Amino acid sequence: MIPSYVLKGIFLDTPTPGELRCREGYALCRGGHFAGFYSALPQDLAALPLHDFSGQLILPGMCDLHLHAPQYSYCGTAMDLELLDWLQRYTYPEEGRYRDVAYARRGYTNLTRDLLHSATTRICAFATLHTDATLELMRQLSEAGIRGYVGKLAMDRNSPDFYREVTPEAGLAETRRWLDACTHGEYPGVLPMLTPRFTPSTSDAYMEGLGQLSREYGVAAQSHLSENLSEIEWVKALCPGTAFYAESYARYGLFGGEQPCVMAHCIYCPEEEDELIRRNGVFIAHCPTSNENVIAGIAPAARYLREGYHIGLGSDVAGGHTLNLFAVMASAVQVSKLRWRYVDKSQSPLTIPETLYMATSGGGALFGKVGLFEEGYAFDAIVLDDSALLNHLPFTPGERLERYAYLSDGRPQAKFVDGRRLF
Amino acid sequence: MIPSYVLKGIFLDTPTPGELRCREGYALCRGGHFAGFYSALPQDLAALPLHDFSGQLILPGMCDLHLHAPQYSYCGTAMDLELLDWLQRYTYPEEGRYRDVAYARRGYTNLTRDLLHSATTRICAFATLHTDATLELMRQLSEAGIRGYVGKLAMDRNSPDFYREVTPEAGLAETRRWLDACTHGEYPGVLPMLTPRFTPSTSDAYMEGLGQLSREYGVAAQSHLSENLSEIEWVKALCPGTAFYAESYARYGLFGGEQPCVMAHCIYCPEEEDELIRRNGVFIAHCPTSNENVIAGIAPAARYLREGYHIGLGSDVAGGHTLNLFAVMASAVQVSKLRWRYVDKSQSPLTIPETLYMATSGGGALFGKVGLFEEGYAFDAIVLDDSALLNHLPFTPGERLERYAYLSDGRPQAKFVDGRRLF
Repeated sequence: MIPSYVLKGIFLDTPTPGELRCREGYALCRGGHFAGFYSALPQDLAALPLHDFSGQLILPGMCDLHLHAPQYSYCGTAMDLELLDWLQRYTYPEEGRYRDVAYARRGYTNLTRDLLHSATTRICAFATLHTDATLELMRQLSEAGIRGYVGKLAMDRNSPDFYREVTPEAGLAETRRWLDACTHGEYPGVLPMLTPRFTPSTSDAYMEGLGQLSREYGVAAQSHLSENLSEIEWVKALCPGTAFYAESYARYGLFGGEQPCVMAHCIYCPEEEDELIRRNGVFIAHCPTSNENVIAGIAPAARYLREGYHIGLGSDVAGGHTLNLFAVMASAVQVSKLRWRYVDKSQSPLTIPETLYMATSGGGALFGKVGLFEEGYAFDAIVLDDSALLNHLPFTPGERLERYAYLSDGRPQAKFVDGRRLF
Repeated sequence: MIPSYVLKGIFLDTPTPGELRCREGYALCRGGHFAGFYSALPQDLAALPLHDFSGQLILPGMCDLHLHAPQYSYCGTAMDLELLDWLQRYTYPEEGRYRDVAYARRGYTNLTRDLLHSATTRICAFATLHTDATLELMRQLSEAGIRGYVGKLAMDRNSPDFYREVTPEAGLAETRRWLDACTHGEYPGVLPMLTPRFTPSTSDAYMEGLGQLSREYGVAAQSHLSENLSEIEWVKALCPGTAFYAESYARYGLFGGEQPCVMAHCIYCPEEEDELIRRNGVFIAHCPTSNENVIAGIAPAARYLREGYHIGLGSDVAGGHTLNLFAVMASAVQVSKLRWRYVDKSQSPLTIPETLYMATSGGGALFGKVGLFEEGYAFDAIVLDDSALLNHLPFTPGERLERYAYLSDGRPQAKFVDGRRLF
């Protein structure tokens, strides 16, 4: 049990999309939860320990709804390659090396260290298809204090021989071994998520089995959806009888409803797909840096947000080149401007408060009461040091946030998760 | 006279667009110029001082062909505003304050310090319409060792009353006073450039007078060109008898030919305008971050580069949010991908070596023999510390450059300009 304490600073959060709430004062942490905000410190709290960050911005910890953990080592590399070349020359060979747990340990140590010092407090990560390496990632994240979901990949087709499960049965047996090793609190704060890489990589039989495991273990699912047009055509060819991409997951119970579900990208969803996303409460992981880097396109994130879909941000490392969700926020604004300019003038561009919403309360809802400084919410907070960005101009807290998003390296000065101070 | 010395490291430069040359060894600096490259140190140079950066990447210093010096203080602020609001609420009021030289000194000190520690060695900057503040900027840049051109703005129409010259005659008299104060080497390495802000801000009579001053003083010009569609329409209305935007400069001798000329943006140039740009050897300042932030669009930079136009990169602070030309390089690649996806599939996206070419040899040609590690070129070099980006993977120098562009803060470890080590 974490002892109660008080955190002082300028608290920014987003109770609704587009609303930037700014409160200067004292936040009470009790039992790992936010337990009250005070503009002046009440007498009965004066004896509690005080973390004093007067004048500094404090934000909710950020949630990265989509990243590929084993790809972190080479993010920002070979972005000039065509996507298919990039997958064949970088992604599959590197992910394949994670069969060696010692190798995986090294790569995941690198990732965990940098995640720890980023703005991110909670994640949904893809690992590789190797059970033991995936458990190693879960162990490291849990020990570092990062919260969230990790997925052992399910891939039994259309992948290179050296990086594929040989039959659905073999894959399902391994998935079960994995679930048995991590669903009982073995890795506090870190839970499994079923992870068919995407429909082309995962046969119907494997999908069906994953759906059964989802119900049996009460485990959520994550995957990719409607990222690019040729992928969508491919899924149509692979899945006769489906009316749209999402049905290839939904027909096996892997598209929200009972269990939470996260789908990355959603750039080209037809209307019926949108309806199913909304009806099933599926979380959209909007990954603007990745969608730009791999030339997928620009998702209609502004529309999703303003129409009330569940939507958060994803770094999608290493299609995305950075773990820094502040940079992803700025990128989301920027590409939404180009979408307005070249694709669709019906939605005005995203704003920084809207992207902060996605990075915090929007994505945070996947994890429960996460992403706001409100009674009962998890006490996840990051403290920003923007002193290098201050000058003779009188910036408002909102302007300081914006400059931090566009100009900083996104590494906070202090970080709290479930009330525990990580640094 | 700078004494000769030797610089050791991994030298990357771009003799032609798209070609990344990588040489590990020793570069000789003699008289401020590059005077030879050696993979092993010759006996007769062994007695010279050696700057040893073994294993580190060394690049030519970068050239920022377009930036607004007084806007630096608020870059990354209010990017959610409409362009016109942004100009009225931020740009004009802040630029207006530079009438106070003490205020200008403070703002320019901020800029000069950060430019000094950036990758940039040479610039083309817009100042404000105030002569004394502009001279203050030239003084600071010169003393810091930054090279290039600075322009006192010429604006006598379509600007707020508090920030406009009252008549063309008054503006021209002030311009002459400015030229008389800075064309005789008063600010070593920093020269004036005539700077009508853009055609809507500068009357025909003022333009005509600037053209005469350009010839009389032998001074180059810079401005904006074809940045957005309503601007182009506006120029057409303001300048009857011109066939396209560039003619509004060219008819007064302010569009290259005799004198060098830099035009920022060039997003929507019709074919005849392109022809004039090419014929007159006009330098295009490609500003991808700004073009995205202010929703101007995406320039056909890949085509310009591959068809042999003079083209360099511009940060366009504060439409662009950052001085970091590595970030601008990455952004140029990224938006060229979206241009390929949504606008024009005839040009494949830009590559990092192509954007490095623009940032160094492409833009460098404006300043003479600048931007390459070749005999007779100015010895401008930056040494990168990418140790935080190294890990267990065996990155090539090209991959290290790419990761540095996408992931670093772009602040080199050491910097040389005309052979002088600045830090």
